Amino acid sequence: MADPVPPRLYLDDLSVGDRFRSATHALSEEDIKGFARVYDPQPFHLDDTAARQTLFGGLAASGWHTAAITMRLLVDGGLPLSSIIGLGGELSWPNPARPGDVLHVETTIQEILPSRSKPDRGVVQCECTTLNQRGDVVQILRPKLMVFRRPAA
Amino acid sequence: MADPVPPRLYLDDLSVGDRFRSATHALSEEDIKGFARVYDPQPFHLDDTAARQTLFGGLAASGWHTAAITMRLLVDGGLPLSSIIGLGGELSWPNPARPGDVLHVETTIQEILPSRSKPDRGVVQCECTTLNQRGDVVQILRPKLMVFRRPAA
Repeated sequence: MADPVPPRLYLDDLSVGDRFRSATHALSEEDIKGFARVYDPQPFHLDDTAARQTLFGGLAASGWHTAAITMRLLVDGGLPLSSIIGLGGELSWPNPARPGDVLHVETTIQEILPSRSKPDRGVVQCECTTLNQRGDVVQILRPKLMVFRRPAA
Repeated sequence: MADPVPPRLYLDDLSVGDRFRSATHALSEEDIKGFARVYDPQPFHLDDTAARQTLFGGLAASGWHTAAITMRLLVDGGLPLSSIIGLGGELSWPNPARPGDVLHVETTIQEILPSRSKPDRGVVQCECTTLNQRGDVVQILRPKLMVFRRPAA
């Protein structure tokens, strides 16, 4: 049997207070170093020995890596919208993600603002919290998303 | 002659109003699709033909890709601090980055808050604007950075 297709939600389908939970992603040491080599080559993201001498006390993922993994978890059904188009938002990293962490994302719909000028869409304020397997929060993202209404049949 | 080593600045070296400009990064269609396949596999980041039917009107980089490239430009001397450790901040993407765009980052130091409890460090509020070759703003990031004072000699 094929996997069930996840539902794809539109603006009309959302209510304030709706909650969604993503699948999980296991973060490896090699992934952390691979992302850092390309996008954030600082010692605490590249080398465990060097990282021990830093604020992080050991190898830690770049916050931008945590953000990118969070996006993938959301796109893969963690936030089952027809499309996920971010306008911007607030971002914080209360704890670093570490090698071996198993991450997932919990999302709450906080506000829904239908557009006055463009009736086919609205802006949705969400809170997306990324946690590891111990429940430590590694990222809080509060994005404003552009969400379309369901197209006319 | 070896390239000059860029200066590495500490909290004591910064003043409100200081401005920095990064080198440039040319964004290719392959880079956009490669990042999207791993972290943001939505049609408008993966396929030019599909993207034409969407809000973006053509292939556009994931905002998280723009953020990651911005970080690399900052680490490579665009913000010549001893280390760049973000606590979080605000992020927005006023325009998408496109294939062929040549990006750079302009940073302004907006506020410097020495820590009261930890005299070796402080928090620096910056504004980092990422622009393309036409001067279009593709990202505004207002990060709070943890910046150390210069270690005692």
